Amino acid sequence: MKIRLKTRGELFIISAPSGSGKSTLIKLLLEQVENLEYSISYTTREPRKGEINGKDYFFVSEKEFKKMIENNEFIEYAKVFDKFYYGTSKKQVYSRIKQGKDVIMDIDVQGAYQIMKKKELDFTSIFIIPPSIEELRKRLISRGRDSIEEIEKRLNTARNELKYLRHFDYVVVNDILEEALSSLKSIIFSERHRVKRLVDTENIYKHFAEE
Amino acid sequence: MKIRLKTRGELFIISAPSGSGKSTLIKLLLEQVENLEYSISYTTREPRKGEINGKDYFFVSEKEFKKMIENNEFIEYAKVFDKFYYGTSKKQVYSRIKQGKDVIMDIDVQGAYQIMKKKELDFTSIFIIPPSIEELRKRLISRGRDSIEEIEKRLNTARNELKYLRHFDYVVVNDILEEALSSLKSIIFSERHRVKRLVDTENIYKHFAEE
Repeated sequence: MKIRLKTRGELFIISAPSGSGKSTLIKLLLEQVENLEYSISYTTREPRKGEINGKDYFFVSEKEFKKMIENNEFIEYAKVFDKFYYGTSKKQVYSRIKQGKDVIMDIDVQGAYQIMKKKELDFTSIFIIPPSIEELRKRLISRGRDSIEEIEKRLNTARNELKYLRHFDYVVVNDILEEALSSLKSIIFSERHRVKRLVDTENIYKHFAEE
Repeated sequence: MKIRLKTRGELFIISAPSGSGKSTLIKLLLEQVENLEYSISYTTREPRKGEINGKDYFFVSEKEFKKMIENNEFIEYAKVFDKFYYGTSKKQVYSRIKQGKDVIMDIDVQGAYQIMKKKELDFTSIFIIPPSIEELRKRLISRGRDSIEEIEKRLNTARNELKYLRHFDYVVVNDILEEALSSLKSIIFSERHRVKRLVDTENIYKHFAEE
């Protein structure tokens, strides 16, 4: 009988300075890579029309959310616009990893750094960077969503966020989208061959010993 | 100006139980992957017709070889058939890595384990395994090179070598050749995105800060 190596999944924390094309890349990854899922956040805001509990978000009350904070149940959480809480639950992510699924967590640079500093979780971090600040400026202008002042503010934020590069495991330059996508896929695929991710190694040894 | 990330190369130690198809896979990798080279061994045997010094091997005298052993210049070395020495020089491998080349070292399982135990070098290890002992038997029989007794001896060796799996970084099952090749490529490509392999990080930070 041919061996089939079983591996646990991995949590991929993907972060990038604003405007680096992270969301597009993650969308394509989720479409094209099997056994790869997006982490679902908990939130205290009301569901919008069409949003499904447990698919788009887990919708909970502020009381429930605060209880989860107390119990240290979040990988990270934040209060957005001083109003609603958003957070990623450890249990939710690690139960899927145990089933062999890879999970992507899309998070801003500061949030990613907070998780790294804690050093309590096992994950692989990927930093997506633009090829240059000039290119980032072009992209933000052509998007037409922000004023010149807003764009320059964003570029300054990006400059600061780029300083966190050294804390990540992998770096991918998003110059040509297809190339960046292929690099991200390589990283995800190669991590699936990690010996330390194998489960049931005793059975592997048995498989070969008994034939 | 667009950033080009410069990385140092990596030493890939590739090992496999005999008959796993390692040599074919390495040959294809070297043909298809840019900036990937084979490590050149030192040997004390005479060059065969057509062999070029510094390309196929570095041909040295036994005296020179023993001097290199004394000076701890080898990543590993062995005396084959109690007659000729073969060895891989640290300087040779690491000078190419410094130039940004990835280097593949093809080595038997025991040799790989010796290198790992020393823990003095920086490398990534990959273990190629057959899908089953039965499949290995089929391959060895269809190769028609060995007697039944010799094949059973090889299978026993393979069974023992498979126990070293846990010491490697990555594992690739060579069932369908194209799939195994693609997995190996992913591993090599993904390692090129490692932040810890970046050289000249100060320049990267400058690049983004000054624009």
